[in-house]
Amino acid sequence: MILTVTLNTALDLTYGVPELVPHASHRVSDMSERPGGKGLNVARVLSALGHETAVTGFAGGPTGAVLRELLAVGLPPRNADTRTEDGATPTAAPITDALVTVAGNTRRTIAVVDRATGDTTQLNEPGPLVTADEWTALLGRYEELLTGADAVALCGSLPPGIHVGAYAELVRLARTAGVPVLLDTSGEPLRRGIAARPDLIKPNADELAQLTGSREPLRATRDARRRGAHGVVASLGPDGMLAVTPDGVWQASPPAKVLGNPTGAGDSAVAGLLSGLVEGLSWPDRLRRAVALSTATVLSPTAGDFDRAAYEELLPRVGIEEHTTAA
Amino acid sequence: MILTVTLNTALDLTYGVPELVPHASHRVSDMSERPGGKGLNVARVLSALGHETAVTGFAGGPTGAVLRELLAVGLPPRNADTRTEDGATPTAAPITDALVTVAGNTRRTIAVVDRATGDTTQLNEPGPLVTADEWTALLGRYEELLTGADAVALCGSLPPGIHVGAYAELVRLARTAGVPVLLDTSGEPLRRGIAARPDLIKPNADELAQLTGSREPLRATRDARRRGAHGVVASLGPDGMLAVTPDGVWQASPPAKVLGNPTGAGDSAVAGLLSGLVEGLSWPDRLRRAVALSTATVLSPTAGDFDRAAYEELLPRVGIEEHTTAA
Repeated sequence: MILTVTLNTALDLTYGVPELVPHASHRVSDMSERPGGKGLNVARVLSALGHETAVTGFAGGPTGAVLRELLAVGLPPRNADTRTEDGATPTAAPITDALVTVAGNTRRTIAVVDRATGDTTQLNEPGPLVTADEWTALLGRYEELLTGADAVALCGSLPPGIHVGAYAELVRLARTAGVPVLLDTSGEPLRRGIAARPDLIKPNADELAQLTGSREPLRATRDARRRGAHGVVASLGPDGMLAVTPDGVWQASPPAKVLGNPTGAGDSAVAGLLSGLVEGLSWPDRLRRAVALSTATVLSPTAGDFDRAAYEELLPRVGIEEHTTAA
Repeated sequence: MILTVTLNTALDLTYGVPELVPHASHRVSDMSERPGGKGLNVARVLSALGHETAVTGFAGGPTGAVLRELLAVGLPPRNADTRTEDGATPTAAPITDALVTVAGNTRRTIAVVDRATGDTTQLNEPGPLVTADEWTALLGRYEELLTGADAVALCGSLPPGIHVGAYAELVRLARTAGVPVLLDTSGEPLRRGIAARPDLIKPNADELAQLTGSREPLRATRDARRRGAHGVVASLGPDGMLAVTPDGVWQASPPAKVLGNPTGAGDSAVAGLLSGLVEGLSWPDRLRRAVALSTATVLSPTAGDFDRAAYEELLPRVGIEEHTTAA
C-alpha cells in the first residue's frame, strides 16, 4: 500500500462559463466536483496505475462529508481515453479513506474555466482551523498506517493551526518506520521538512528558487539536496525534469511540447515517481513514467486526470540524458 | 404569517479577494455563506421587521442541508447597525422552514467581491432538476400554508423541470384562497404569471422593458397593469419607485442618491410592500417603507442586509408625489 497525506484537503469545483467577464453575472454552464488536495490527486493516479492506496489528512463539516462520499464512490466511470489497447477497461485499485475527522469545514476550491479561451481563474478558500487534539489524532493514525505502507507522499499546503514544522515531524516518523518518504510542498514547510532528510522532494522551478535563491536548475537542485533531501527531482514544466540523486544525475524530457491545462501535472509526476520506487524501477524508468504521466495530464480534457492512451504512447518516447558530472 | 415561495433556493457564498485578476489564482481572504434565493431574502427582512414568516420552495442534497441548517440557526448576531435608538436589540420574528425536500442538490451562487474596488463578479450554478412528483408535493404544501397566510410573495427564477406556467398556477391558488399575492420574477414566467391576475408585481426597469417593450416608466408600468396585475410597483434603481394601483399613481424617491451594493435591494422592497399591505398601511406609507428599506440595503456593508439605523433615518425623508392623471 502507498500512503498519501493531505493535511489541507479540498472539494474541487470546476465551473464552466461561456466567458469570464469581471464584475458581470455569469450562469455556470457546466460544473463538476471532486475530492481534491494534492495527496488525493496523487492517490487517484496511483489507483489508476493499479496501486492500492490509503489517504489520510483532515476532513470535516458538510464539505468534508461530500468529499468523503465522492471518495467512496471512487473514480468516475472510465471513458474511451482510459481504455487499454485491447479495449479492456483497466480496474482502478481501491483507495482507502483513512482521513481524520475535524470539527472545521473542509475548504472548497473553484476553478472557473472560460470556455471561449480555456483559461482558468482559481479561487481557493482558506482551510479550516485544525486543533492540537486533531493534530495528535492525525499523528496516531499516520503511525498506524506507516506499519502497512511501502512508501508515503506528504503533499500540499498546511491548514491554519498546523505548525510550520509539521512535515518535518511526519518525515522523521516515516524514516523511523523505515518507509521511503516523498515531500511535495513549498515555502517554510518545505525548508523545515527538507532538514528532516526526506528520501525525495519534487519542487517546481518557483519552489526551488524560493528555497535556494537560484533559478539555474542544476545549481538550485544540487543546493536543495545539500539542505538534506536524499534525492531531488525538479519539475521544469515543458523542459521536463531534472533528478539529482545518490545514484546519479538525469535530465528527462517530454518528446514534444504540448498545450493543455497543467493543473495536476505535478501530482501525476509524484504518483509516477512513487509507483516507480515501490516497483523497484531504475531512476531513468521512474523519470520516464513521471514525465509521461505529467504530460498526459496536461493533455487530458479533464483537469487533473491523465489521458491513458497518450501516457502509453509517450512513455517510450521520453528522452533521458545522464549527466556525467558528480551529483 | 407571511409566506414566501422560492422555487430556486440557493446557498449564497461571498468570497472576498484582494483583487480579482482573470486567469490568476486567488486566495479567498474572507468568506461567508447564507441561505439565498429571493424569497429567503424577503423572509429575512420581514423577520427583521418583526413579521412571522414561513418559507417554502425546494431544497435538497448536501447544499440544501447546509442551507436549512443556516436557516434554523436564524439571523446572524445583531450588530450595532441593527440596534434601535434606545439601545435595545429588536428581536427578529421566527422564520418557519416549510421547504419541500428534493433529490437534487440545491445550487450555490458565488459573489466574488474585489476588496480593492468593491465590485462584484457573480457565478450562479444551475438549479437541480425538479421532478413532477416534487412539484406536486410543493403544491400540496403551498395550499396548506395558504390557509394560515396573510399574504404571499412568489419570488425568483424557476429551476429546471418546473413548467413556465408554474407561477400562474401559484397565483391562481392564492387568489382562490383569498390571500393577497405578490409576484417578483422575470421573462416568460412573469408574462404568464401576470395573466393569472396577481395583486402586485414589482418589476425593475429591465424586467418591465422585457415585458412591455417600453423603457418609458409610466407607459411601461401602465401596460404591465393592463396585462393583468392589479397593482404594479416598478423599481427604478436610484430614481425610486413608481406605483400604478387601483387607488392611484405615486412616484416615491429616496432623499439622496447613495453608493453601495444594490444586491438584495429589490428583495427588501418586496418585504417593505408586503409588510405594509399586511399592516394596512396607505400606499404612500408602503412606498416610503419600500424605498427606505431598499436604500438602507444598498448602504449596508453586508450584501442583502439592511442598515437599520439608515432605514429609520431615511423613512420620513422619502419623497412621495401623487400623479393626478388616472392609472
